[in-house]
Amino acid sequence: MGFVKSRRVVYRPVKDLNLASDSPQFYLHANVKAPRMTGILVKVFTWFLESPIFGPLLLYILKGNNLIHTLITNAELDESPLYVPAHHFEDHNEQEVKNLDSGLTPQEKVQLAIECLPSSSEKAQNETNPSFSRWTIMDYYEAYSSEAITPRVVAERFIAAVDESSKHPLPMGFFINYNPDDILRQADESTLRYKKGEPISVLDGVPIAVKDEIDCLPYPTTGGTKWLHKERPCIDDACCVKRLRLCGAMLVGKTNMHELGAGTSGINPHYGASRNPYDANKIAGGSSSGSAAVVSAGLCPVALGVDGGGSVRMPAALCGVVGLKPTFDRVPHSGVLPLNWTVGMVGILAGTVEDALITYAAISGEIPSKQPSSMLTKINLPLLSFSKSIRDIKLAKYGKWFNDCSEDVRLCCTQALSELQDYYGWKTIDVTLPDIEAMRLAHYLTIGSECSTWFDSFGKKHIAELGWDARVALSLYGSFSSKEYIKAQKLRNRQAKFHKRIFAEADVIVSPTTGVTAYSIQDDALKTGELDYVNGGWI
Amino acid sequence: MGFVKSRRVVYRPVKDLNLASDSPQFYLHANVKAPRMTGILVKVFTWFLESPIFGPLLLYILKGNNLIHTLITNAELDESPLYVPAHHFEDHNEQEVKNLDSGLTPQEKVQLAIECLPSSSEKAQNETNPSFSRWTIMDYYEAYSSEAITPRVVAERFIAAVDESSKHPLPMGFFINYNPDDILRQADESTLRYKKGEPISVLDGVPIAVKDEIDCLPYPTTGGTKWLHKERPCIDDACCVKRLRLCGAMLVGKTNMHELGAGTSGINPHYGASRNPYDANKIAGGSSSGSAAVVSAGLCPVALGVDGGGSVRMPAALCGVVGLKPTFDRVPHSGVLPLNWTVGMVGILAGTVEDALITYAAISGEIPSKQPSSMLTKINLPLLSFSKSIRDIKLAKYGKWFNDCSEDVRLCCTQALSELQDYYGWKTIDVTLPDIEAMRLAHYLTIGSECSTWFDSFGKKHIAELGWDARVALSLYGSFSSKEYIKAQKLRNRQAKFHKRIFAEADVIVSPTTGVTAYSIQDDALKTGELDYVNGGWI
Repeated sequence: MGFVKSRRVVYRPVKDLNLASDSPQFYLHANVKAPRMTGILVKVFTWFLESPIFGPLLLYILKGNNLIHTLITNAELDESPLYVPAHHFEDHNEQEVKNLDSGLTPQEKVQLAIECLPSSSEKAQNETNPSFSRWTIMDYYEAYSSEAITPRVVAERFIAAVDESSKHPLPMGFFINYNPDDILRQADESTLRYKKGEPISVLDGVPIAVKDEIDCLPYPTTGGTKWLHKERPCIDDACCVKRLRLCGAMLVGKTNMHELGAGTSGINPHYGASRNPYDANKIAGGSSSGSAAVVSAGLCPVALGVDGGGSVRMPAALCGVVGLKPTFDRVPHSGVLPLNWTVGMVGILAGTVEDALITYAAISGEIPSKQPSSMLTKINLPLLSFSKSIRDIKLAKYGKWFNDCSEDVRLCCTQALSELQDYYGWKTIDVTLPDIEAMRLAHYLTIGSECSTWFDSFGKKHIAELGWDARVALSLYGSFSSKEYIKAQKLRNRQAKFHKRIFAEADVIVSPTTGVTAYSIQDDALKTGELDYVNGGWI
Repeated sequence: MGFVKSRRVVYRPVKDLNLASDSPQFYLHANVKAPRMTGILVKVFTWFLESPIFGPLLLYILKGNNLIHTLITNAELDESPLYVPAHHFEDHNEQEVKNLDSGLTPQEKVQLAIECLPSSSEKAQNETNPSFSRWTIMDYYEAYSSEAITPRVVAERFIAAVDESSKHPLPMGFFINYNPDDILRQADESTLRYKKGEPISVLDGVPIAVKDEIDCLPYPTTGGTKWLHKERPCIDDACCVKRLRLCGAMLVGKTNMHELGAGTSGINPHYGASRNPYDANKIAGGSSSGSAAVVSAGLCPVALGVDGGGSVRMPAALCGVVGLKPTFDRVPHSGVLPLNWTVGMVGILAGTVEDALITYAAISGEIPSKQPSSMLTKINLPLLSFSKSIRDIKLAKYGKWFNDCSEDVRLCCTQALSELQDYYGWKTIDVTLPDIEAMRLAHYLTIGSECSTWFDSFGKKHIAELGWDARVALSLYGSFSSKEYIKAQKLRNRQAKFHKRIFAEADVIVSPTTGVTAYSIQDDALKTGELDYVNGGWI
């Protein structure tokens, strides 16, 4: 940071800051000030927030309490704003990386991804034999190819399982929509292809679920609301869904999500809470709650989510699966609800890193017609085959940030890091990443302002159809000035510069994904939704 | 546009709109509602605007009266926001165009530009012989090369002329700073180079003035204020200035400008009004007022300005010289005051199109170290040599917009168009460019929000040091919400789509640059500055 003078921070030039571990940079703990609220309290609070006179005053106080005025509104910093994080692609001539040309078909990309995977002999060495195991994409493919099972049978069992999971006492809340007829039709087509010995790719017949923020026929796209699909009918598959279909994937329905992505608990007042398969009394996290939960439950090896501020990574962490938010612009965004424009990205939830890699290969890459071929960027896939060993990976760790979490998370992540070091010999370097709390607030302000602008395209007529927590979020989201929004983009550029400096020294920045494990779903939250910014902030 | 329902416009999809001349699109005349104010009235108005309770109310009414709520704040439109107009470069394989590689030196680029000019035999045919004629860059170069005159003599005469122009009764207000010693030193060095027969380029010894928004040693960069240079010392030349220096140009001082570029009259309360060389009782226009005036007066063949919303083109039009605002990002912005980040661009004021071309060649092109060489974009220069004839140029004209100006401007521009048609056989096609008033307001909101954010980096401590009109502008600028800013960027994307469709049919969109000719400077405006949004709106 820089120095604080009467409620305004003067940020020092990036080049003058020490990013090593001995940096005198002050680490500001996120200190979210807001009581947990449910029931009548939420309604009264919402009423105040939405009222024309008390509302702005209350919002002003809330923003002040949460340091937004000090760290952003009144901040002084030299950086120009960075609105869209689309950087020039730099070809590093990396070793042991496959370049996927954007001109390739999804099937060809998937085939190249397979060649990055460890061979089955290597795999066997690393495998343990747990009582419960999720099927990977290759498991499905091998079982289909060897006729051990057919996509038709998988589809039938899938439908039965989802049906069962929806029943009381604790409905799991995995899906907003799924259509057994459509699933069986896809399964039959895939079964036929395997019978003819002509599967399209390793994804043929593999069940993949899609967050209800992404267009996927024949389903409406609700965004977790009760009204959006009536205003905005779904008329085509999103580009990423089209690519999965081209690979033969079996699209098994639209997963539950936090309403409009405006929260992280995954408790949806209209479609129920997505419950955590490890403990059905706990949240799955959000906003891609259903996508994380179905992968965690072993219903699908892979599901698509959308991540604007952790919405894939957080539920993945809380459900114990892999969550990938690709770099901005790597996956085409067409056919995804424009809940924001500069931070959201289609992401992948998968049981294994390998499955995330295969799916990423299938859906990533620009739409070729968008620009002249000389400008097409290439997608790099790392070779996961460890016989060729990924050597010399350097992990950057900011201790104060890494450890700013609950005891169990800290122990678990420290242990994981030490295993990576022991097994692969990877080095950890200690760094300092300044202004993390300012970055968190700048992100909130960015995604909030954009979401509120998007929501505004429908007028105010649907506000009363939203859950209470989404209404509160939209009130907060709509309270920022253009100056605050632009300042947030300046802080974003500043962070990009810090990250660039750290990535010049290290390959990866490591930190726990969430500060706590999944918390319990309280009964009162299910009806009105809950405001729990303190727990939410920890996530 | 689309349809208006209770003070909100629902914009129809771009693809559904007819952009031909028979389009039913409604042309909304700019109807700026604000009284002209000077003196005590401005002070009282400013006091109201800056007060915490009346201010926001007054601003709300002002914005409503000027249709900002209807056309922007409450607008419904599908386009995603376009923040930075940096498009992928598409190589059209245009005929009769020279590609300048960014790797070339400024001198090499200037040399290639020279090869685009008509030969002197062609030139002679087109020349008339007016009583007053401005020297072009080639006139200087030829006179220096033939020893008809030396840079030293030009510098001495230049200094004498500026000195004379600063005297009463009507000081012309050309420069904020110019340093005779520094000018003479450059002149002597250039004189020596010509003596040795080693001029660096055709720009060697050519006097070029620089708007006081662009860093140029040994001068401070005031931005037209009395305080900015104390907060932000000028420590190096801006990139564009560096390139001119590399070509041997003689940099002759920092020209006057509208304070912080926040107006278009060029009346500066601290450094006087830049007066129009055609009539010293009239404004030169702004904000690059001094740069337009020195070129118009024949003191320099070329001056640099900065154009965020007509700040080069408008004063150029009012002073009868050429004004060029290059495409965003074509000229590096480093060393230019960051008064905004997404609309401003270094521009060129010149006596002739040829001189604008030569200067553009010298200053344009990315900074080569910025990115890998494969990504360097090329700059296209048109071949101006008419013996090779630029055939088949298509001019797009939106009649309602073209004619939305005073009678004299309309007649003059219609006449010019008809001469172009007669002389070169160029065709005019009639088009419709929808939502022009919304575009004007979206631009105002964009540049205003950004300028206010920039100004905020200095706290509020300098507000009282600003002229009254800049204070009013900053109050308005700072009044927008993040939603309004983002909506403005959505309208920007919408306009980009309209322009793209029109440029698929035509090469150039023609319109008068200003709706009126230069208006008179009233005495009361000189002290307090004036608020004249009606006249300003016409410009």
